[in-house]
Amino acid sequence: MAKHRIIIDCDPGHDDAVAILMAAGHPDIELLGITTVRGNQSLEKTTRNALNVCQYLGIDVPVYKGMSVPMVIEPRPVEERVHGDSGLDGPVFDELTKTIEDKHAINYLIDTLMASDGDITLVPTGPLTNVAMAMRIEPRIIPKINQIVLMGGCYQLGNVTPSAEFNIWADGEAAHIVFSSGVKVTMMGLDITRKVLCYPSVIERMSKHDNRAGKLFCDLMTFFNKGQKKTFGWEGGPLHDPTTVAYLIDPSIVTVKNMHTDIEINSEQSYGRTNCDYFLLTDDVKNTDVAIDIDVEKFWDLVEECIKYYD
Amino acid sequence: MAKHRIIIDCDPGHDDAVAILMAAGHPDIELLGITTVRGNQSLEKTTRNALNVCQYLGIDVPVYKGMSVPMVIEPRPVEERVHGDSGLDGPVFDELTKTIEDKHAINYLIDTLMASDGDITLVPTGPLTNVAMAMRIEPRIIPKINQIVLMGGCYQLGNVTPSAEFNIWADGEAAHIVFSSGVKVTMMGLDITRKVLCYPSVIERMSKHDNRAGKLFCDLMTFFNKGQKKTFGWEGGPLHDPTTVAYLIDPSIVTVKNMHTDIEINSEQSYGRTNCDYFLLTDDVKNTDVAIDIDVEKFWDLVEECIKYYD
Amino acid sequence: MAKHRIIIDCDPGHDDAVAILMAAGHPDIELLGITTVRGNQSLEKTTRNALNVCQYLGIDVPVYKGMSVPMVIEPRPVEERVHGDSGLDGPVFDELTKTIEDKHAINYLIDTLMASDGDITLVPTGPLTNVAMAMRIEPRIIPKINQIVLMGGCYQLGNVTPSAEFNIWADGEAAHIVFSSGVKVTMMGLDITRKVLCYPSVIERMSKHDNRAGKLFCDLMTFFNKGQKKTFGWEGGPLHDPTTVAYLIDPSIVTVKNMHTDIEINSEQSYGRTNCDYFLLTDDVKNTDVAIDIDVEKFWDLVEECIKYYD
Amino acid sequence: MAKHRIIIDCDPGHDDAVAILMAAGHPDIELLGITTVRGNQSLEKTTRNALNVCQYLGIDVPVYKGMSVPMVIEPRPVEERVHGDSGLDGPVFDELTKTIEDKHAINYLIDTLMASDGDITLVPTGPLTNVAMAMRIEPRIIPKINQIVLMGGCYQLGNVTPSAEFNIWADGEAAHIVFSSGVKVTMMGLDITRKVLCYPSVIERMSKHDNRAGKLFCDLMTFFNKGQKKTFGWEGGPLHDPTTVAYLIDPSIVTVKNMHTDIEINSEQSYGRTNCDYFLLTDDVKNTDVAIDIDVEKFWDLVEECIKYYD
Repeated sequence: MAKHRIIIDCDPGHDDAVAILMAAGHPDIELLGITTVRGNQSLEKTTRNALNVCQYLGIDVPVYKGMSVPMVIEPRPVEERVHGDSGLDGPVFDELTKTIEDKHAINYLIDTLMASDGDITLVPTGPLTNVAMAMRIEPRIIPKINQIVLMGGCYQLGNVTPSAEFNIWADGEAAHIVFSSGVKVTMMGLDITRKVLCYPSVIERMSKHDNRAGKLFCDLMTFFNKGQKKTFGWEGGPLHDPTTVAYLIDPSIVTVKNMHTDIEINSEQSYGRTNCDYFLLTDDVKNTDVAIDIDVEKFWDLVEECIKYYD
Repeated sequence: MAKHRIIIDCDPGHDDAVAILMAAGHPDIELLGITTVRGNQSLEKTTRNALNVCQYLGIDVPVYKGMSVPMVIEPRPVEERVHGDSGLDGPVFDELTKTIEDKHAINYLIDTLMASDGDITLVPTGPLTNVAMAMRIEPRIIPKINQIVLMGGCYQLGNVTPSAEFNIWADGEAAHIVFSSGVKVTMMGLDITRKVLCYPSVIERMSKHDNRAGKLFCDLMTFFNKGQKKTFGWEGGPLHDPTTVAYLIDPSIVTVKNMHTDIEINSEQSYGRTNCDYFLLTDDVKNTDVAIDIDVEKFWDLVEECIKYYD
Repeated sequence: MAKHRIIIDCDPGHDDAVAILMAAGHPDIELLGITTVRGNQSLEKTTRNALNVCQYLGIDVPVYKGMSVPMVIEPRPVEERVHGDSGLDGPVFDELTKTIEDKHAINYLIDTLMASDGDITLVPTGPLTNVAMAMRIEPRIIPKINQIVLMGGCYQLGNVTPSAEFNIWADGEAAHIVFSSGVKVTMMGLDITRKVLCYPSVIERMSKHDNRAGKLFCDLMTFFNKGQKKTFGWEGGPLHDPTTVAYLIDPSIVTVKNMHTDIEINSEQSYGRTNCDYFLLTDDVKNTDVAIDIDVEKFWDLVEECIKYYD
Repeated sequence: MAKHRIIIDCDPGHDDAVAILMAAGHPDIELLGITTVRGNQSLEKTTRNALNVCQYLGIDVPVYKGMSVPMVIEPRPVEERVHGDSGLDGPVFDELTKTIEDKHAINYLIDTLMASDGDITLVPTGPLTNVAMAMRIEPRIIPKINQIVLMGGCYQLGNVTPSAEFNIWADGEAAHIVFSSGVKVTMMGLDITRKVLCYPSVIERMSKHDNRAGKLFCDLMTFFNKGQKKTFGWEGGPLHDPTTVAYLIDPSIVTVKNMHTDIEINSEQSYGRTNCDYFLLTDDVKNTDVAIDIDVEKFWDLVEECIKYYD
């Protein structure tokens, strides 16, 4: 199998950081670049966090700063309870020397996709603002995208409102554009990411790897779990974003079902819901592979494998 | 414990018929009256079916005809694939001699509730049109309703659209009125009714009771399962409506969680969704006891117990 | 020409009172009954006001109390700045001896229309709650309604929000039902009623008629204008509701144009807008005769004529 | 008075062309650049038309190509009945030698505004996609915009739906962003542009000026009026877009009123309505100077004056 050539579009974020760690470490993935977006934290902070993760792990890929606000709605408040003031509290980073690229993330996406052979996979782990804006500014990139494997949405219960998951709710219009674009979307939603709970035993397991990746993973997850405990009373928080990279590396880890998905953007109450037609009730085009189950043990095995690559 | 004094508001329908069978048979329930509404079938047919069930089982309660259309939206198409042309295909009924009451169901609800001591429980197993109309015409009935135990909605996946369950979708405005009325609502949604699958083994079990109730149950369910098989490929269909009566008789059968529920009525895409705040993400008033689990074995035991009362 | 046999459905209200005065006085109108609804004031007050107007003017028609709340939305606040605490401040009424009928207004509408030959015209001058509820409870009345001539809506500027006129905004769902019912609707909207300004000169003119109608008109309008002056800075307020009766008596007073009208009920911002297709931009069925101009002089002449009938 | 330094953002279109003609000709206006957008026609055609107008009139300003689709909704059909197949039928243009700039219109807007002293006025005469996208990609341009004087919207009757005017309806989300941005917006809506009817007598008057501007005006308007006649039965069509430039040159030509304006984007029925609070019914911030009247004679005088500058 050829390597997956991917761009991660993210708002790090503890789980985004692990997704970067895995993608940059695993030999089946070629990480072309990282684009950042407002989401869990402000664009300034998510961008700084992306740079810090790359510098810390020695990941030599360019980082591009993207959208600081959603397409249409007002920016949602940031979530400091879970990710801390910096958006990536926990690890101690050296002084930042890695620098951001000059080009705007949207222009990077457009230029890179237009120059490609159609073999690039987008891996969004934050709100879909950058991707949707790029699609609207240059619709010719749409057939150039190999596929989109994203973290977001849910067909059952939301995590910011009863209806909606954060990434989709943070920019519903962007999600509507991406899901209805015609590009094949694979959606890692809360329905499965809620099963990937990073219990202390997982941290302990990964801590045995005495390299930067193991240390980063443990520093991140130790802080993350404190927030989960304090905010929700949970011993281990869900590691949402890395499921995207895990699925790319080994699709057998995640069970998906092909179905139609619509994004609700016309009602405040249900704004950002991913209406996934799980039971195939309609004849609408099946635009999404929706994750419906995950092999949690295989997932942690893969995380560990990725950490080992940093030995 | 005092008997539950209830009014069943229904659109029979195979599962409504079983709910009536159980309520009329069980000594813990005093069935005061039955009101009918358009839902699974036209009002004419659901009314006729309610009368037929009563006559067949010798249930001597008055039946009142209610709303033939929803409050605001256009009537939804009827569902003949599941319930047949009559809306209650399967059993063979004698010529109908039991007659409908003169009074409109709405007026019956208003008059009965206003004259009551506040001890009457409403058990809607169809669209909520009658109940909501009564609440609007005479708001003073609202504090007179002891509680509402209804079949409808879902916090996970719908059955007519990805968002919505049939009874709520069939009259979202009515559901909005009922759920926001201030009356305590207990919601038996698809989340649990989907677990109550009437497999052939269940029919066989109930067929051992050689009385009219056993025969009616088996005639109904045999036809019902044919439709489920043909339409969805399932061996046994979900027996939605009787969960309401089961819960009233023995609350230990169903696990409920208290939470806020909003009804989506402003967007066509998500129309009729019951947005249940399962994770208590908001501070909105907890207006609903939402069923989150059911003890299927105990449920079938109770159905059988109810059938035995007809010996 | 045969007399117009009408039922006035109203929320008096100063302008409703003048509409009643005109309809009861003019020989071309046979006023069958009056139904009341919450609108400008609570149902209790609008009902009391209707009775007071009838008693004061010796109008011997039955008055029926209707809906105290809208169909679906929460009741709007009452407007005391314009109509005073009673909803009909200004005149001094004797002790009320005229009594309300037992029957609910909705049942009166249903029974009367079902027993009719299809020759009855409804004249709603308040929110459309009663009429819409009757249509839904008994859809067979719809073809029995000769026509509906109502005050409400606007195709230009609203008076409670930039989009909407009060009567429609007070119960948009009811308006949606009425306008889409198939009954011929003639809409006297703000576009023309804003032109019928009851300047002091009008009051002076009517004051020359030394009968109860003249006195009532002047007492009502003197108070009404004080509110208009204080609230909006206008010398003379618009006499909205009587345009309906004027149009019935002499259609040449009002210019109407046949067009499609839709009621906005899905967005809070534009809720209650009457989207009238003035320029015939769509092929939608022309369900409304929308008033687009009024001959103000002829209108005041007709008001005076009606007052004279009370000599 | 200092010159107005403006950028015209347009979708030519006959009336856009006249707006360019006026802005480039009049000494009180410094036309910095032209950006194009999909609207009356595809982006390819509107861009070509802008270039043709500049080349024909010898206008030496850069032209930048912008958005080919709206922000969120699907592109609306183009309007060939009014503007012809090219979007600017009528005049015969020489072979096009003037070329489009390399930079995307959005980047031109961002770079130019960021480098400015805050003295640049934007004059959008098409859908607001470019301006809104620029505001979202680089929010720091918002305080740099001196003001926006746009053609679009209506507080009375729409021209594509009963609610909405074409430019706003063509991209409601973009309009929402612009109107709520905090920038001072002056809105030339249908309420006044419908009064600026280019009757044959106007064409005859302008035809007396034997220069390229006079010829272009007459060629454009002769074709335009044919379409108006054929489509709507009107002798003279409304010259919407040039009212923006006219207002900038001589504000006394247009009467404006300061009020709040909201854009409807949540309901399909009223999508794109500019809900202008003409009667100041709310306390919402007055974000718009809405044109409420125009001195048509002075307007045509100014058009003629602008044509003369091409002598």
